[in-house]
Amino acid sequence: MVAVLKPGATKQQIDNLISWFKSRGLDVHISEGSTHTIIGLVGDTSIIDIELLEAIEIIESVKRISDPFKSANRKFHPDDTVISIGDVKLGGGNFQFIAGPCSVESPQQVLGIAKRVRASGATMLRGGAFKPRTSPYDFQGLKADGINMLLEAKAQTGMPLVSEIMNANHLPLFENIDVIQVGARNMQNFELLKELGKTRKPILLKRGLANTLKELLMSAEYIMAGGNENVILCERGIRTFETYTRNTLDLSAVPLLKELTHLPVIVDPSHATGIARLVLPMAMAAAAAGADGLMIEVHNDPSNALCDGAQSLTPDQFNVLASKVRAVLEAVRK
Amino acid sequence: MVAVLKPGATKQQIDNLISWFKSRGLDVHISEGSTHTIIGLVGDTSIIDIELLEAIEIIESVKRISDPFKSANRKFHPDDTVISIGDVKLGGGNFQFIAGPCSVESPQQVLGIAKRVRASGATMLRGGAFKPRTSPYDFQGLKADGINMLLEAKAQTGMPLVSEIMNANHLPLFENIDVIQVGARNMQNFELLKELGKTRKPILLKRGLANTLKELLMSAEYIMAGGNENVILCERGIRTFETYTRNTLDLSAVPLLKELTHLPVIVDPSHATGIARLVLPMAMAAAAAGADGLMIEVHNDPSNALCDGAQSLTPDQFNVLASKVRAVLEAVRK
Amino acid sequence: MVAVLKPGATKQQIDNLISWFKSRGLDVHISEGSTHTIIGLVGDTSIIDIELLEAIEIIESVKRISDPFKSANRKFHPDDTVISIGDVKLGGGNFQFIAGPCSVESPQQVLGIAKRVRASGATMLRGGAFKPRTSPYDFQGLKADGINMLLEAKAQTGMPLVSEIMNANHLPLFENIDVIQVGARNMQNFELLKELGKTRKPILLKRGLANTLKELLMSAEYIMAGGNENVILCERGIRTFETYTRNTLDLSAVPLLKELTHLPVIVDPSHATGIARLVLPMAMAAAAAGADGLMIEVHNDPSNALCDGAQSLTPDQFNVLASKVRAVLEAVRK
Amino acid sequence: MVAVLKPGATKQQIDNLISWFKSRGLDVHISEGSTHTIIGLVGDTSIIDIELLEAIEIIESVKRISDPFKSANRKFHPDDTVISIGDVKLGGGNFQFIAGPCSVESPQQVLGIAKRVRASGATMLRGGAFKPRTSPYDFQGLKADGINMLLEAKAQTGMPLVSEIMNANHLPLFENIDVIQVGARNMQNFELLKELGKTRKPILLKRGLANTLKELLMSAEYIMAGGNENVILCERGIRTFETYTRNTLDLSAVPLLKELTHLPVIVDPSHATGIARLVLPMAMAAAAAGADGLMIEVHNDPSNALCDGAQSLTPDQFNVLASKVRAVLEAVRK
Repeated sequence: MVAVLKPGATKQQIDNLISWFKSRGLDVHISEGSTHTIIGLVGDTSIIDIELLEAIEIIESVKRISDPFKSANRKFHPDDTVISIGDVKLGGGNFQFIAGPCSVESPQQVLGIAKRVRASGATMLRGGAFKPRTSPYDFQGLKADGINMLLEAKAQTGMPLVSEIMNANHLPLFENIDVIQVGARNMQNFELLKELGKTRKPILLKRGLANTLKELLMSAEYIMAGGNENVILCERGIRTFETYTRNTLDLSAVPLLKELTHLPVIVDPSHATGIARLVLPMAMAAAAAGADGLMIEVHNDPSNALCDGAQSLTPDQFNVLASKVRAVLEAVRK
Repeated sequence: MVAVLKPGATKQQIDNLISWFKSRGLDVHISEGSTHTIIGLVGDTSIIDIELLEAIEIIESVKRISDPFKSANRKFHPDDTVISIGDVKLGGGNFQFIAGPCSVESPQQVLGIAKRVRASGATMLRGGAFKPRTSPYDFQGLKADGINMLLEAKAQTGMPLVSEIMNANHLPLFENIDVIQVGARNMQNFELLKELGKTRKPILLKRGLANTLKELLMSAEYIMAGGNENVILCERGIRTFETYTRNTLDLSAVPLLKELTHLPVIVDPSHATGIARLVLPMAMAAAAAGADGLMIEVHNDPSNALCDGAQSLTPDQFNVLASKVRAVLEAVRK
Repeated sequence: MVAVLKPGATKQQIDNLISWFKSRGLDVHISEGSTHTIIGLVGDTSIIDIELLEAIEIIESVKRISDPFKSANRKFHPDDTVISIGDVKLGGGNFQFIAGPCSVESPQQVLGIAKRVRASGATMLRGGAFKPRTSPYDFQGLKADGINMLLEAKAQTGMPLVSEIMNANHLPLFENIDVIQVGARNMQNFELLKELGKTRKPILLKRGLANTLKELLMSAEYIMAGGNENVILCERGIRTFETYTRNTLDLSAVPLLKELTHLPVIVDPSHATGIARLVLPMAMAAAAAGADGLMIEVHNDPSNALCDGAQSLTPDQFNVLASKVRAVLEAVRK
Repeated sequence: MVAVLKPGATKQQIDNLISWFKSRGLDVHISEGSTHTIIGLVGDTSIIDIELLEAIEIIESVKRISDPFKSANRKFHPDDTVISIGDVKLGGGNFQFIAGPCSVESPQQVLGIAKRVRASGATMLRGGAFKPRTSPYDFQGLKADGINMLLEAKAQTGMPLVSEIMNANHLPLFENIDVIQVGARNMQNFELLKELGKTRKPILLKRGLANTLKELLMSAEYIMAGGNENVILCERGIRTFETYTRNTLDLSAVPLLKELTHLPVIVDPSHATGIARLVLPMAMAAAAAGADGLMIEVHNDPSNALCDGAQSLTPDQFNVLASKVRAVLEAVRK
């Protein structure tokens, strides 16, 4: 960690600061420039709160040299983490398709989609029982009934389940859900993350709409600090000025995260773009960028689905996507 | 609500769509252009989920004419809402200063600051007992002990209290807190908002870092839909590409919100900028823009406060601020 | 075009507005709702300035149904434009690699890189002679000398040249440059675009850092309105809150632009990310997303290049990239 | 300047780097940590191109301690710059109103508005003769005729003129324009800035839609490096995700710029918000935040102005604004 002091700092102030650093067990190196004094700190600087440090009157700015995340850091854990979900493995070269409807609507709908996407190569079934909606007047999901419909589909197809949690008090309902999803709006719901850290379930953590990659890793760290190392990161688009797509899918996040952390990284092109006809090209691009998996919204028979999602594919479209993505994966691995 | 149909829509598809709208109790007006057919919908369109509508195959785009928020909408409630907090009134011409430390640290600290800011004109005391921190390794607040220190300061000064909640399960601890704050990261924690809607406490709802004003109003609507109409909105800066300030304070939000809603609107210039020397000019600007109040971080004796917030003022600086803001308010009201 | 009127509009005001629309040759359809009147306009609405329309007192909002761009619009020109650059064709299924140094430094440097990238499959040589730099104190390029070095490399290798123009007065220097590049900072330098519209040279138009896809297409329209239909669009990253990468590469722009326009769309992953080790994964992702070409920065022998670009690849790295991208292209086309 | 080296840097590589720094006349301080070596550079580091430095293989990151701008830097020029425009002074406590129509339309229009705004306290007249428009099909301004209408209004009212230039080749037309405006889209048109640096005219430099304050100061530096120190900075809103306003007015830019530079800083609330009814509150807020002046769009008789700007005030509204802003200025200066 490097701290740059303001030009007017007195010797007394600087000495006090240095003593304080030393009392924290840090080695201190001083470099006096023509206008600024620079202090280099060596040791375990993760104990230093950088915002508080910046608040000290004589400090102009602080630069952290080491990353603030530890459990998620690839430097201390060079090998890819492979997460086991039932018989399915994710990460470390194991690419998986997670597919299913945005919202669970009926047992027939879930089971019908599950069979179709499994036949196309999906290995996990996703479905929303609790839905975060911007408006309190919009459909909020089937809740416990929806969870039961998912469990029934799992019983019949053997597919592990992925579903979103919005409230730690609902955890008992998720006992047989295989992967618990934390949505973008809850990425910094630290209380929820702490509770999930107490479980040993795989957690699919989505990047928040306005969160940096470092913040995403710090949120993973909240879960891991509780002892749960089964975290899957998910890029799903960030909020920018562009209004054509719902969000801007940040695919450079994939190779960057793979470099910074050993955790698996998947991509959700359905929510990122909000436009069904962009899902295929963005899914192929995500695979080419090095993602460990894809989460794709698939809806049932569109002739009966007056009100299904603008971003959802039909089972036939998903079948094409899975085949094209596999071709890209082969090309990437050559 | 206006729906624009895609060029290739067949008569049968259009007729089906019209029947569906009519079954929802809506009047339908058709306008056929050279390339597009446009459907105008008249009636209570708030029952229509716009995302789902956009997903219908023959629809190119949808434009909502009426606002999706009702309880918060000034159109249906032209007079300013005035919120009573103990003996203090906020909104409808009643401007208030909320001041206090970022984090509660000790009984002496809280009480000392409370007395100083009260003497300068602050009418409410703020202090954080539960702290949302990006890193699990940073200080998370004194929790229940911090709440007790705030209550002790209230007992001695009579100042109503404002403090942030992060978990609905903590609500019993907030029984004697006068205003419950929802932080920016929880603005779309809909489960928390629903629980707060069941109380009758004033809720101070901060705008999320990447949330639009419409989304802020929809989150207020979550609280109000539960029957709690005591919502105070707070602009505290949004996330942009500019890195000089921590966030970009969006002061145009103040007159816009005052136009869209009857709820009081306050500004937090401390968190918005993250830089103490910007708090005074931004506080004056917020008052000039029409805010109903200010929330200001004030720390105790800086000579003992090695690690207090970069964005906090000393009590003396707050005293100057309060006096200057009062002068601006007088000028604005002339 | 649909205009929504404000609730209080009088009959006289509405009649005046309708007469004005009719005097513009437009058909007018009225739809009266319970709170708002909606006017549908049919005819050539591209003559209507939408900003000015929104300024009329009784108008609440305006929604354009047709796109404001014509020459670039795929609706009026369904087939892909194929641009001929010397013997090279770009677009309509013809994928090309454009490679070369960020700045032209010496004849040996340019020629050396040109030979290496040509051997790896690059068909066009890029190199900057005029450099847009944020600071007036940074290196501004070799200017006319740099152009001559590029021309010499073309003479020896036969590769068509791509180089950036910053001032229409420099056009005579670009007489033998095959493709003139407009940089991101000049995307809305409308005076420059107009001058380039008078030439018949292929123009490589880069998306501005904060420009929407519609604005990019409108800037293409400036060039095309002058009669020059040889425009190549280039996605090179947009400015967001994320600070890890220099910009955020918006790859969903590729399929969206390919849908909206018949013009070729290429991607520059070097400038988008600013990090050499991200260029390979993002190049593969761009190819998977459907790009018509890639522009890649390649520098000469790094052991002599103390100060070459952080985002540049070595010729060997470019060779790997070209081979991997070709594999992805094959997979995509299966 | 501080450079952090990567963990794997060899002694030979580090020694080479140190020699290179020393050959540039810099003093070098080494601080070896447990994982990283940090190099502090003392001397005139403005000669070092930070991007190029970051590209060196063994360097992980670089932090500039000194600001990269010199002529504009308040550290080297503590007193406020006061710019003389005819008899009018701007900056250093001299607050001015610049008012006038968005576009010059006719001699009567310009003169009529000029007289009205002068009576309300405006000291400079603005009007656009060359208009940057996103679409080539929109009105591009009256050009030379528009300039002549402005000059006629100046002859009759004595008001100095402010008008936007889009092309350095038009400079002869601006000979009698008192202040030349550079629009947001041209803030980084470095060729234009260089030409303006050769004049001695006051230049009103608007912040680009996606430009940081540092970039704005570097663009001012382009003008000043040519010898023209008469630069006025103008905050006019930045592009964010919020869609309610056209741009987000960043008022914290005002006190920040006043701290970083000695140049005058004005605010344009008309373009920032794009909504006439927000101009008054944002003008008052800008004055409260410490701006040195305001640029306000005022249009002529709205009953005849079917197509005037949504963001323009009537002369009567401007009169109220000027009076309210003066009251705020008095309060601020108390």
